Amino acid sequence: MAHASPIEADAVVIGAGPVGLFQVFELGLLEIKAHVIDSLPFPGGQPAELYPDKPIYDIPAIPVCTGQELVNNLLKQIEPFGATFHLEQEVSTVEQQGDGRFIVATSKGTRFLTKTLFIAAGVGAFQPRALKLDGIEAFEDKQLFYRVKSPEVWTGQNIVIVGGGDTALEWAATLATQEPHKPQSVTLIHRRDVFQAAPSSIARLRELCDHQKMRFMVGQPTGFATEGDRLTAVQVTDPQAQTHTVPLDVLLVFLGLSPKLGPISDWGMEIERKQLVVDTEKFSTSVPGIFAVGDINTYPGKKKLILSGFHEATLAAFGAAPFVFPDKKVMLQYTTTSTQLHKVLGVTPT
Amino acid sequence: MAHASPIEADAVVIGAGPVGLFQVFELGLLEIKAHVIDSLPFPGGQPAELYPDKPIYDIPAIPVCTGQELVNNLLKQIEPFGATFHLEQEVSTVEQQGDGRFIVATSKGTRFLTKTLFIAAGVGAFQPRALKLDGIEAFEDKQLFYRVKSPEVWTGQNIVIVGGGDTALEWAATLATQEPHKPQSVTLIHRRDVFQAAPSSIARLRELCDHQKMRFMVGQPTGFATEGDRLTAVQVTDPQAQTHTVPLDVLLVFLGLSPKLGPISDWGMEIERKQLVVDTEKFSTSVPGIFAVGDINTYPGKKKLILSGFHEATLAAFGAAPFVFPDKKVMLQYTTTSTQLHKVLGVTPT
Repeated sequence: MAHASPIEADAVVIGAGPVGLFQVFELGLLEIKAHVIDSLPFPGGQPAELYPDKPIYDIPAIPVCTGQELVNNLLKQIEPFGATFHLEQEVSTVEQQGDGRFIVATSKGTRFLTKTLFIAAGVGAFQPRALKLDGIEAFEDKQLFYRVKSPEVWTGQNIVIVGGGDTALEWAATLATQEPHKPQSVTLIHRRDVFQAAPSSIARLRELCDHQKMRFMVGQPTGFATEGDRLTAVQVTDPQAQTHTVPLDVLLVFLGLSPKLGPISDWGMEIERKQLVVDTEKFSTSVPGIFAVGDINTYPGKKKLILSGFHEATLAAFGAAPFVFPDKKVMLQYTTTSTQLHKVLGVTPT
Repeated sequence: MAHASPIEADAVVIGAGPVGLFQVFELGLLEIKAHVIDSLPFPGGQPAELYPDKPIYDIPAIPVCTGQELVNNLLKQIEPFGATFHLEQEVSTVEQQGDGRFIVATSKGTRFLTKTLFIAAGVGAFQPRALKLDGIEAFEDKQLFYRVKSPEVWTGQNIVIVGGGDTALEWAATLATQEPHKPQSVTLIHRRDVFQAAPSSIARLRELCDHQKMRFMVGQPTGFATEGDRLTAVQVTDPQAQTHTVPLDVLLVFLGLSPKLGPISDWGMEIERKQLVVDTEKFSTSVPGIFAVGDINTYPGKKKLILSGFHEATLAAFGAAPFVFPDKKVMLQYTTTSTQLHKVLGVTPT
């Protein structure tokens, strides 16, 4: 199979969480440009996805901030370094070439030829939690969807949505009121009559149900019906153990995201209890040129703290410099306002 | 010689720079209270003393801040933990007791009996740079001073001030205009007619000289005169190599601060090129119970960065916990909003 030429890179960072973003910063200080890959549609990783509004107290010199504020500050900090983000894709393969560089390929077909690789993947790639019904995966991307792309093609169809969080409720309301592409029906199914969603979303759901714009059922999907190669209905078992058949054309499932370590274990690095083993000098994995920083690595004394990831990213950047600039002597950067730092950041010294 | 009872402590931190302050925070999270010792009259260490107004760019998630802002944020962050500060004193001796604890004594005579000791002393204790004239040290704290304590006792005396920075200029102006404790004369001596001081201080100096409230001489102290056990004059050599005798009763010297590693090398820890050798798991020195964090330590890959010091302080706190609570199992703290963190910080979870 012929491939388009891969993107030539000095550094590829897997994971756009806080540690991946700070990795971009530390590489930038050493004048190394980075490409960043993440499975989520936005940068920020766990704090942005799992606790955007919760206060964090243990980032040094930030008495309190939310997960989203932390991410926003890091994004602002890396702005001068012009990293390229490749979102909504996971890295599927990493293969070392004869010259020591790595071919990195993602689930979207993006390919890189890179001198160094930084795995800042935290607990793994966040992926939509799958509906656990044997055989239903055959309908994925045909009638079963975990993300919505072009809702207007469902005009006049029967849509069933599974889930009780903000995403499920928001899509239910949006689709139920979508003009001029109104579906035939919208049914929301959730295991109980309690939602993990914003009060305003819940109020809107009740209102739409009261006005027969959509319907809500308490229960869990326990089976499905097909006709030929088409999915025709989902079976829903309610809390009284009654099973109902709900006809459908489209099944949308929003059960949240769960992290998957994914194929990292196939890339030939030493692993200990699902963590990448690194040294404490350069945070290099057992494959020279591949570094691991943040929650995904392990070493004696390792604590899964964001601030430790920041330190690791810094030392990994220095460790990587000889791979990127084999002939250049890397300057030791002190925390202060050195001329080089000003030059790199493009600001004027005071 | 009889001593008053020492202060019993779980942790003593030497150095109130950013890393020492963050050490207080990490100890606080583990419910360990700290005493902090510093040679400066205020917390903050190098950034507060040497570059309070200069921008710092490489603290994670803080795109830019001044040295003083960094320190202020850290002080706010450690507020819940009620550390006790012991300022304007250096640690002179550390002696391990039979029970493993340490007697720590300072230049002011403060004594601690502590289970753990954290050396976050950076490049050493900041001490006033001494006037380099052979034999002049005999007059220190009698007629020669590097800090001003009770200027009113110099009423009617001849005061000579050496230095060209803010401290020298401010004391010259203050003393020259001090009512009702006016000295006989105030003479400022600086090696050139250019000052490293705020424009307003320089303008005030010129004004006071124009009004004969004080006098300014360009030159360098090259000798001194005595009568009996009294210092009577300083000899000042001007740029034309002429030497002038300036009579005096009091000599104030403000030539800035310089760091001194001091007696740390006498405390029995392994040292390599003036740095304390530590492991990378607990950042323990070769003496169990004594930890070294920040610029003063060394290990393979060490970078002298504030953020590395933050990471080291965190792991050192965990390393110290068994010395403080020999029977308690220490919980691993994840970066998030755990109930324990809320309890320790005294805030309500959201």
